[in-house]
Amino acid sequence: LSCIKRAIVDIAKKIKKTGEDDPRRILHSFKVAFAITLVSLVYYLEPFYHGMGDAGMWAIMTVIVVFEYTVGATLCKGMNRGFATFLAGALGVAAEWFSDLFGPTVKPIVICFLVFIAVGIASFARFIPSMKRRYDYGLLIFILTFSLIAVSGYRVEKLIEMAHQRFSTIIFGGATGIAVSMCVCPVWAGEDLHKLTVLNMEKLASFLEGFGGEYYSISNEDDKSFLAAYKSVLNSKATEESLANFAWWEIGHGKFLFRHPWKQYLKIGVYTRQCAHHIEALHGYLDTRLEVSSEFQKSIQEPCMKMSSEVGKALKELALSMKRMVYPSTSATHIENCKTAIEEFNTTLQASNMENWNIVETIPVIATISILIDIIKCVETISEAVEELSN
Amino acid sequence: LSCIKRAIVDIAKKIKKTGEDDPRRILHSFKVAFAITLVSLVYYLEPFYHGMGDAGMWAIMTVIVVFEYTVGATLCKGMNRGFATFLAGALGVAAEWFSDLFGPTVKPIVICFLVFIAVGIASFARFIPSMKRRYDYGLLIFILTFSLIAVSGYRVEKLIEMAHQRFSTIIFGGATGIAVSMCVCPVWAGEDLHKLTVLNMEKLASFLEGFGGEYYSISNEDDKSFLAAYKSVLNSKATEESLANFAWWEIGHGKFLFRHPWKQYLKIGVYTRQCAHHIEALHGYLDTRLEVSSEFQKSIQEPCMKMSSEVGKALKELALSMKRMVYPSTSATHIENCKTAIEEFNTTLQASNMENWNIVETIPVIATISILIDIIKCVETISEAVEELSN
Repeated sequence: LSCIKRAIVDIAKKIKKTGEDDPRRILHSFKVAFAITLVSLVYYLEPFYHGMGDAGMWAIMTVIVVFEYTVGATLCKGMNRGFATFLAGALGVAAEWFSDLFGPTVKPIVICFLVFIAVGIASFARFIPSMKRRYDYGLLIFILTFSLIAVSGYRVEKLIEMAHQRFSTIIFGGATGIAVSMCVCPVWAGEDLHKLTVLNMEKLASFLEGFGGEYYSISNEDDKSFLAAYKSVLNSKATEESLANFAWWEIGHGKFLFRHPWKQYLKIGVYTRQCAHHIEALHGYLDTRLEVSSEFQKSIQEPCMKMSSEVGKALKELALSMKRMVYPSTSATHIENCKTAIEEFNTTLQASNMENWNIVETIPVIATISILIDIIKCVETISEAVEELSN
Repeated sequence: LSCIKRAIVDIAKKIKKTGEDDPRRILHSFKVAFAITLVSLVYYLEPFYHGMGDAGMWAIMTVIVVFEYTVGATLCKGMNRGFATFLAGALGVAAEWFSDLFGPTVKPIVICFLVFIAVGIASFARFIPSMKRRYDYGLLIFILTFSLIAVSGYRVEKLIEMAHQRFSTIIFGGATGIAVSMCVCPVWAGEDLHKLTVLNMEKLASFLEGFGGEYYSISNEDDKSFLAAYKSVLNSKATEESLANFAWWEIGHGKFLFRHPWKQYLKIGVYTRQCAHHIEALHGYLDTRLEVSSEFQKSIQEPCMKMSSEVGKALKELALSMKRMVYPSTSATHIENCKTAIEEFNTTLQASNMENWNIVETIPVIATISILIDIIKCVETISEAVEELSN
């Protein structure tokens, strides 16, 4: 019994966490339910029902499969479904008409052959990256509709009527789905991509700003979450790419115009991840910080602290200017400060007496600085990409 | 005109590349076409047609949406569709029966309310990570079938008949899809995951084996592709996780039993990616190799070369033993060699006269060694995980 109780508590916790992670999910669930209830009304309102008949079922189906979390994804699926149905319907009718020329005995063979060829080609096209990215669902629907219409084996007049009815219900369902998705508290993929890119930069910036203090164990921050937050950036590629794909379908919204340069966000994402890879390497040196000869470490404490805090500030400024969609004007000074710090470090190092230190123990310290210098280079690249976006 | 010609050549190249990247894709396209042609035969063979009627359309639809590239994905979708249709059908009939109790006027309101609640809950459940991973498609089909059956508004007897017919055609279509996917040149997700994990380790191993020669510019290898191959490992997380999810559904095949520890592959994948992150940092130092004082570099050439080649060999042995599914027995010696090389390096460094070198110019060299040492630690973790898998 306690086992069941624990399982229920477990599930309740999972549900709570899912809702808390992104409260818009709860709203989305209501939106889906609302859209479906709306479309299912056609079954109850007499005039609608007579217009559509049992094909109204297709409207419900379309809403359900088309309705996605973001507006972009819904538009992508809706448009794909609409166009693919239209194209496949037309080709299906043509195939039916063409096969009729061969007489009733040969007709099934001709149809089977045509279906085989069309399905084979469309299935293969789903593997081509550029097709997969934008038209994967459309190709699936093409296969579906073409097979159904070509195979149905009705007389052509009835077939056209059927194709027309199915197409109009799909348009009806798709339009309802898109309208609800876009008008009731919309979740824009483009906005999410924008926020994600900014958030990722902020995560890296927080790590870098706090790194110096952590490394010298002089930080009195209790909340150490900033040390692990950057890890999610490492695996953000798939999310960013799918958001950018969906954003491509979206109309202008909020601060973003139609055809906002979403590709530039992917570029910034690549550089941000590159920076995150270096931070991952840097993170490893936090564990070795106690074993190191403190004397050498202390002698370079000032430039090291300055480097990490200034590069963090530069990145934070870049994130802020991206958030506000303005030209990043203040980050350049912080990058300049970083470069001064690198020079300071070099001078300190050259002036100091190497013989006093245990060289083996200095290896991790020097590696840390070297990675910090690489990170500064990375941030410069990010800065250029952000500038390009703001133009 | 030349523009059109170029576009066609472009598309042809893309198609060729897609086919060459994985020739099984061409086969898959034929498999899909074959499965659909097979199911569409029910329309032409009289006895089948009488048994199914127009619901045969649902069989074609099921094959099309269920048929995926790997057996695991097909099984996942097929099982999800089957169970979800059954459950939603039963609940839909129950909802219809329940709402009948309220009389014809209130019935539509009760049904709308039930649909709203059920769809809302199921939509939200799709966000819960553990549900999303395995039952996402099932939840979608649940929403679909429940809405359709509850809303259809037929009399209960006819509804049961309809649900029964739909369910049996879905089983027929799903079974055909699964059978073709499993029997005609199957593509197993588990096998792909196994191969991918091994390949990723091999890519890292090739980089490490070649790194020493590249770094000291003494390699006479013409093919430099091994220097960039590791980059695909950095972003392999999503692919690995989806393959592991699909592999969970698969029955035993080839060398893999049912319930093979696929989770362990994900663990090895995490460590491999960690290693790849360090290699990404290491790769950056290849560009700085010419600016560095050659004297210091030469003094540590031997241990450095040894470290990188031995750690590469260790990883290659691990990959090989994983490929053959045997206990990794020879990799331990290579890891031991690495550790000897680290000690040699430390001794060389302590014995050498630091005053002769420009300390600033040695920074990247020392950082390189430090990262190599980190990589050796990573490979040790991978080795433990591979040993665990082989037990």
